[in-house]
Amino acid sequence: MLLTGTGRLAPGGLSPWALLVRDGRIAWVGSPADAPSGDAVDLGAALVTPGLVDSHTHPVFAGDRSDEAAARLEGAAYTDGGILRTMRATRAADDATLETLVETRLRAALAAGTTTVECKSGYGLSLAEELRHLRILRRVAERVPVRVVTTFLGAHAVPPEASSVAEYAAHVADEMIPAVADERLAEFVDIFADAGFFDLASTERIARAAAAAGLGVRLHAEQLARTGAAELGVRLGAASVDHLEQLDAAGVTALAGSATVATLLPAPAIVLRDRLPPARALLDAGASVALASDANAGTYGGFGTMPMVIGLGAALLGMSVSEALTAATAGGAAALRRPDLGGLAVGMAADLVAWDADHEGAFALRLGAVRPLRIWIAGEEIDLRG
Amino acid sequence: MLLTGTGRLAPGGLSPWALLVRDGRIAWVGSPADAPSGDAVDLGAALVTPGLVDSHTHPVFAGDRSDEAAARLEGAAYTDGGILRTMRATRAADDATLETLVETRLRAALAAGTTTVECKSGYGLSLAEELRHLRILRRVAERVPVRVVTTFLGAHAVPPEASSVAEYAAHVADEMIPAVADERLAEFVDIFADAGFFDLASTERIARAAAAAGLGVRLHAEQLARTGAAELGVRLGAASVDHLEQLDAAGVTALAGSATVATLLPAPAIVLRDRLPPARALLDAGASVALASDANAGTYGGFGTMPMVIGLGAALLGMSVSEALTAATAGGAAALRRPDLGGLAVGMAADLVAWDADHEGAFALRLGAVRPLRIWIAGEEIDLRG
Repeated sequence: MLLTGTGRLAPGGLSPWALLVRDGRIAWVGSPADAPSGDAVDLGAALVTPGLVDSHTHPVFAGDRSDEAAARLEGAAYTDGGILRTMRATRAADDATLETLVETRLRAALAAGTTTVECKSGYGLSLAEELRHLRILRRVAERVPVRVVTTFLGAHAVPPEASSVAEYAAHVADEMIPAVADERLAEFVDIFADAGFFDLASTERIARAAAAAGLGVRLHAEQLARTGAAELGVRLGAASVDHLEQLDAAGVTALAGSATVATLLPAPAIVLRDRLPPARALLDAGASVALASDANAGTYGGFGTMPMVIGLGAALLGMSVSEALTAATAGGAAALRRPDLGGLAVGMAADLVAWDADHEGAFALRLGAVRPLRIWIAGEEIDLRG
Repeated sequence: MLLTGTGRLAPGGLSPWALLVRDGRIAWVGSPADAPSGDAVDLGAALVTPGLVDSHTHPVFAGDRSDEAAARLEGAAYTDGGILRTMRATRAADDATLETLVETRLRAALAAGTTTVECKSGYGLSLAEELRHLRILRRVAERVPVRVVTTFLGAHAVPPEASSVAEYAAHVADEMIPAVADERLAEFVDIFADAGFFDLASTERIARAAAAAGLGVRLHAEQLARTGAAELGVRLGAASVDHLEQLDAAGVTALAGSATVATLLPAPAIVLRDRLPPARALLDAGASVALASDANAGTYGGFGTMPMVIGLGAALLGMSVSEALTAATAGGAAALRRPDLGGLAVGMAADLVAWDADHEGAFALRLGAVRPLRIWIAGEEIDLRG
């Protein structure tokens, strides 16, 4: 399949452009004058980008915490009480209910141009419930054409049944991770390594169990307090450390010298009226940066909003639009250790989106009110009416 | 027509609730137990609010300035060059093209829950072009069921044909405003009263011509510099002064003691990486505050995004969700001098939206990813498939 356009192929901004897809991958990209002969799908003036990669979401939950968001914005504190409220509602929801909720969220992401979405468990907080949620993710992933990368986040909070952080961390490491790995239910293990959640020792214990089981590691880090979780993530070889609102200059330096991606989540940062993560410092220092939605039950509920996240990256985090778009494509792919996704180079997956825009600046100018006209994943066009 | 729900009628939060519509207006509101007998439309658990009032938009333009937004976020300056670029593209577009663009934008606003939208001209900047744009607005308003309030913004920038600000201001005051008023093409006159655009003397000259012609006055004020335009607006009896990013404590005090509404536009403020307007100070001082989108050609392109604007008001401007929702309904209505709109009291227009949410906190929690399930304007249900 040959795609051509007179608009922009971004990031990079090639215009006009031609792109040859073979066996689901990009086989050639260049000027239309040099393209192989044959029928082409002409995308006209539409902006075309790699499919967006949302490398941080929590789609498996029931219940609604909008009332809590409203109360928090009038001064109530953000505590782990919220996660446990969602845990109770989610444990009480049957499989069919949860599958419908997850499917709706994944379809919203896809319809908004996200072609790869990382999905965490973490509102179950018991072996049986976490396995149930991961199995639901697997079933939904089979019927929605978006690429799903699954992460086990048993260490999202300490459930009321546990007597201590250390006891629950041991349970996650010794019982839950082996069961998840046995059933091949996740590629990554995530840990909420922050003040009031999992301390560094418990985090390291869980992360070493993940590595022993052959699973990658990612951390929620430096959101609520500067704890050193970013440096621990680097030392453990984490694929990504996410949030980083409280990161300081030493943390920026540690990440810049590492293979660990700094994943920034501007949407929950502003919903929580938190500090914004040091995006400009991370980019200037040479760190790998991803932008993701963090769509979840309690601190940011917007599934299908990656175009807005790109806009917020540019408007609020000091990134150029090109940097923000790259962070939401190649950056997200790097955070998922998927170098074949999120780019336009020969050999990469042909995951592409044609947008109702002429230029990538529209992600900022419209703060995300930019919609896909057509989407391809592995060279197969997605039916957007689905 | 009787509407009932077990969810929330907000702002105010009545739950459960019943609302009687008669002759397009709210005839009664209260508890279902006290409701008049008869068949009811049951909205279940859905959040129901007044229709949103977007009191500041610029929908009549052609061309795309996404490239300029991208360049600006890499350090280029915002100047009036941008408005003149849109002026050229818009003057070059024929009526059918502009009508289609305006209709698409108004339908996007309506589909997102905006039931009243103020629409400015201002990309024509000549008598013939401004009249053409206002006539296009009138024609489109006849076929889109949203309520349209039209504003003449001939004083948006000084066109290249004019030799000075004063000369063009005299033309606006002496030639353009009488022609607009003769044809009853607008209810308001707006003036970009800011540094590099219209000075206070020129602004006053235009505003006095508007008043003489029986038109209301509104100002773009205190966006680029603290000029005193807010106080001038109060002195002239302006319905609203809009933007206010540079407003100081004295300006807050002046507005708080006046009938002039302070209209805040967080979306372009962040796209321009500008200061944020002093929303909290204005509310605490007792000023009337509106939130609006400012959807336009160059500094914020998101038509149909009032739910996000409410979210940004809460997340970025220090407003509670209830304050932000009120500012986007009753506040916008006050800014348009339409006390019959934007509220739930008996006698007000039955403009109502049922949302895919349970609680108004969803506007913040989801940063605008909240969609109407059903919309009524003057008691008539809108076909959302239109």
